[in-house]
Amino acid sequence: MTFEAPTKDMLFNIEHLSGLEELHTLPEYADVEMEDIAAVLTEFGRFCAEEIAPLNASGDHNPSTCEKGRVTMADGFHEAYQKFVEMQWQSLPHPTEFGGQGLPRSVGAAATEILNAANMSFALCPLLTDGAVEALLTAGTDEIKNTYLANLITGKWTGTMNLTEPQAGSDLALLRSRAERADDGSYHISGTKIFITYGEHDMAENTIHLVLARTPDAPAGVKGISLFLVPKYLVNPDGTPGTRNDITCQSIEHKLGIKASPTTVLEFSNAKGFLIGEENAGLNYMFRMMNAARYAVGLQGVAIGERAHQQALAFAQERVQSRPVDGTSRDAVTIINHPDVRRLLMRMRAVTEGGRAMATFTAGWQDLAHLAPTANARARATRISEFMTPLVKGFCTETAVETASNGVQVHGGMGFIEETGAAQHYRDARILPIYEGTTAIQANDLIGRKTLRDGGETARELAEMIVETEQALQEKSDTTRAIAARLGRAREDFLATVDYMLATAPANPNAAFGAGVPYLMLTGSLCAGWQLARSALIATDALETGEDTEFMQRKIETANFYAHHVLNETATLRDRIIHGADSLLNATL
Amino acid sequence: MTFEAPTKDMLFNIEHLSGLEELHTLPEYADVEMEDIAAVLTEFGRFCAEEIAPLNASGDHNPSTCEKGRVTMADGFHEAYQKFVEMQWQSLPHPTEFGGQGLPRSVGAAATEILNAANMSFALCPLLTDGAVEALLTAGTDEIKNTYLANLITGKWTGTMNLTEPQAGSDLALLRSRAERADDGSYHISGTKIFITYGEHDMAENTIHLVLARTPDAPAGVKGISLFLVPKYLVNPDGTPGTRNDITCQSIEHKLGIKASPTTVLEFSNAKGFLIGEENAGLNYMFRMMNAARYAVGLQGVAIGERAHQQALAFAQERVQSRPVDGTSRDAVTIINHPDVRRLLMRMRAVTEGGRAMATFTAGWQDLAHLAPTANARARATRISEFMTPLVKGFCTETAVETASNGVQVHGGMGFIEETGAAQHYRDARILPIYEGTTAIQANDLIGRKTLRDGGETARELAEMIVETEQALQEKSDTTRAIAARLGRAREDFLATVDYMLATAPANPNAAFGAGVPYLMLTGSLCAGWQLARSALIATDALETGEDTEFMQRKIETANFYAHHVLNETATLRDRIIHGADSLLNATL
Repeated sequence: MTFEAPTKDMLFNIEHLSGLEELHTLPEYADVEMEDIAAVLTEFGRFCAEEIAPLNASGDHNPSTCEKGRVTMADGFHEAYQKFVEMQWQSLPHPTEFGGQGLPRSVGAAATEILNAANMSFALCPLLTDGAVEALLTAGTDEIKNTYLANLITGKWTGTMNLTEPQAGSDLALLRSRAERADDGSYHISGTKIFITYGEHDMAENTIHLVLARTPDAPAGVKGISLFLVPKYLVNPDGTPGTRNDITCQSIEHKLGIKASPTTVLEFSNAKGFLIGEENAGLNYMFRMMNAARYAVGLQGVAIGERAHQQALAFAQERVQSRPVDGTSRDAVTIINHPDVRRLLMRMRAVTEGGRAMATFTAGWQDLAHLAPTANARARATRISEFMTPLVKGFCTETAVETASNGVQVHGGMGFIEETGAAQHYRDARILPIYEGTTAIQANDLIGRKTLRDGGETARELAEMIVETEQALQEKSDTTRAIAARLGRAREDFLATVDYMLATAPANPNAAFGAGVPYLMLTGSLCAGWQLARSALIATDALETGEDTEFMQRKIETANFYAHHVLNETATLRDRIIHGADSLLNATL
Repeated sequence: MTFEAPTKDMLFNIEHLSGLEELHTLPEYADVEMEDIAAVLTEFGRFCAEEIAPLNASGDHNPSTCEKGRVTMADGFHEAYQKFVEMQWQSLPHPTEFGGQGLPRSVGAAATEILNAANMSFALCPLLTDGAVEALLTAGTDEIKNTYLANLITGKWTGTMNLTEPQAGSDLALLRSRAERADDGSYHISGTKIFITYGEHDMAENTIHLVLARTPDAPAGVKGISLFLVPKYLVNPDGTPGTRNDITCQSIEHKLGIKASPTTVLEFSNAKGFLIGEENAGLNYMFRMMNAARYAVGLQGVAIGERAHQQALAFAQERVQSRPVDGTSRDAVTIINHPDVRRLLMRMRAVTEGGRAMATFTAGWQDLAHLAPTANARARATRISEFMTPLVKGFCTETAVETASNGVQVHGGMGFIEETGAAQHYRDARILPIYEGTTAIQANDLIGRKTLRDGGETARELAEMIVETEQALQEKSDTTRAIAARLGRAREDFLATVDYMLATAPANPNAAFGAGVPYLMLTGSLCAGWQLARSALIATDALETGEDTEFMQRKIETANFYAHHVLNETATLRDRIIHGADSLLNATL
């Protein structure tokens, strides 16, 4: 089926939710105009719709294969990737200093979403490369940066993250891979890594593996983990790929979804590697890379929601079945006229647009965290953007699974037939709440590092910002006032659960963390609804000036639906969090 | 992975929730003892665990195939089916008059669940045969019954339901298949039927198709549909299969799940068929068959929830990962010690046991609907059991999808790898809220036929019964009092939405039916929680006598968890139902 990038909604969010006015005061973004952003995203949307999206179903039906350590990519992936590189799409969000285009993160986020909506299996390769770039920018020496960054930023070389081992998934303390120092300052890396996305493939001339391993004298646990760069081909002095390193792809996994993306088992046998940053500080660097990747996985959730919604909407507009319940026709009508199909479609749209709005809002704070002129402003932006990361990852991926499932439901029996395509989204989406940290891991982060560590300060600061939005909503229209009332109730639910976490976690951590996922979903639901409420404010103003009436009307409708059908989940979640611990913890499993 | 039938929970439900005392007063069930039921279910559980369950994964990896109109079943299915027939398992719930074992429906339901938990693809064949038996018992002539019933009840022959056509899924008014009268009183049936489960296979010597079609002079719409029996092989006077009828299997579908179950496209070309009941009354008979099938699909939901829960629990007890958040160990522990894994497992258990309890309760009323001594008692039991049917179908299948998804989540990254098996449940479960009527179709039934038609009488009668349970809960313990409080709140939410439906549906059907699925989920959640609350009452009494302490303690825990984590969803659902119509209906899609 055809795919159309939701550029209009993205541009609205970038202009109105990402704090663009403030970003324009920064020298880095002073010259970035909305027209330029629109041109870039429109062109990228066209490219993805024409070149990448058509490979989504075919790559699922005939996935990538592995034989004798060589991975052959699904048909068309190789050619499409060359075009992707030629057209310099990889460089979009990266710094101009190393050949990037230096666009705001909200624009990079929109591009990531578009690529993933077109083809999640394909998009994983550039996504991992982005993560490697982030890690090298953070902790690489000048030599490392000069040797690797330019080719990663063009996409000529690709990157991977090598964390997981058979016994070490969520728990990196259990890592066993070893790194022995060599005389020349490099290291010999040995060990087995599993679940390595694009660990081996034929699309690029070199692959740069970032690998966690332990030096012989490293302390036990996570404080003894170091980060190494281990290239598939060692790089010659002239910058070209040389000797093949001793890294073997042993197999690729037979997965539920994202089948065209090769998920490899890699064996490192005294492979030559280079330390990134300091020994035993690997986890810190990996966390930077992982935070970027977690945010990106949240975008994948929005992306698959968008794609599933487009497909279900198109089907509902064509499929004729049953007379309408209101008796307005004696003949069968298209199923979009049936109120439950409408309900499913509106819910898909609301959580998808809500997730996108929340992600765009977060991207603005990420930029300020790096670029704001004062240390105070940077610190505040860091706190806020880091608070938002587990919400974007957790909420947008949990809702992605729900949205993909609702997309199957809209199709009825046809949704269960693989050729229809709805089932692929349902399968693909299922990895999202798992990889780069399960939703429970995100919730642990939200409670521990983001709520308890600053005594709830950031949480309450966000609540204050929400109050401001509520006040503005009171001034506009009956609809925005109705949204304000529901936003206020959800905010109160949120503050009650923040108090609960602060009071409970120290003495009864199991009670607090057992309510972690509900707390994450409550907070995510609130923040997504808040950003949609902000959208409704902007759209109400725009309606008065007659600007783009149809689009603006729909933004208000989405926010209003969200307020009445999604945001009210906070009541149940609050009850579960605050009154659910005993029945959860005292049961015999 | 191994599977163990949950016979203990089933026997508890049959003894305490299915109204067994009243059933014992009926001559049909006067001699049915719990020990006999226990013996039957234990033996059937053993058979399914040993012979049927091992074929579940292999049938998924190497599904049934179709070549030139012949379907070859997945490896092992043929042999297992012969054993199933030899051991007379098919006859369990059917009347003794035609060779059945005449056990209460609650026992038949338990057997259906066990078989489906072992292997849903396999179980679909007997399930469809049960439906055909139901239809023939309802509307077949003596000649039809004598010719076909005995062989269907032994399982020597299998049955199918042929409703769907490419243009007619949920909407049977759009049916086009034709039935021309022949001189000998039979009919020539022609048309294309799709999504026909086990429409062609090699496990039985004959297949009896029940087919909806129109006679030439039939009125348009659903009032012109007749039901025909169309055997794959015409039956000789001596009862053996004779000439092959003109029915061709054109292909089987490539599906998301239940892959070993052949879903066929059947072409009927002047095939010889026999009218069942009256011309143009086919839909009524089909509805009987469909109601039985809908209830059975609800049991499939419970079944897959049970299987997914067993698998996730076993994984969580073995997988070691991360230190506990409460600091009780400095080493990594099995993940069952992590509170969010506990939360996922408890939710899986609660909705599965809740669904099973509700289904068993319903089975008791189904028996009374047929067998109660007075017309009044039969009418009341009919009303109650028919009110429950869309709840069992809708609630237990929606929660099955959620439970299977949670099962994947418990497995983390391993859950996304097909070899682990958790993903199969996630794929298999997805058909359940679709076939035999989507959840929205169930909700239409719940609103239209079950709530509005009697002006809310049955709904309020159930609420009165729930009040009685609340009163009993008040007398027992702190835990049961806490359950009572939450059950009462959910019951009030239910009654408010019943009032809303009665007030809204006549003037604004789109508002009412647009809230249909939330109304179904609220009512289903309430009734499942109610039955668990009844279980907690019984278990509390049993604890005092020291009977089976561990099991009884767990029943109370399940009910308590359900009350604090599932039942509170009614608040959000009520809000959506009563305040959600405008934002739903006024949006531009």
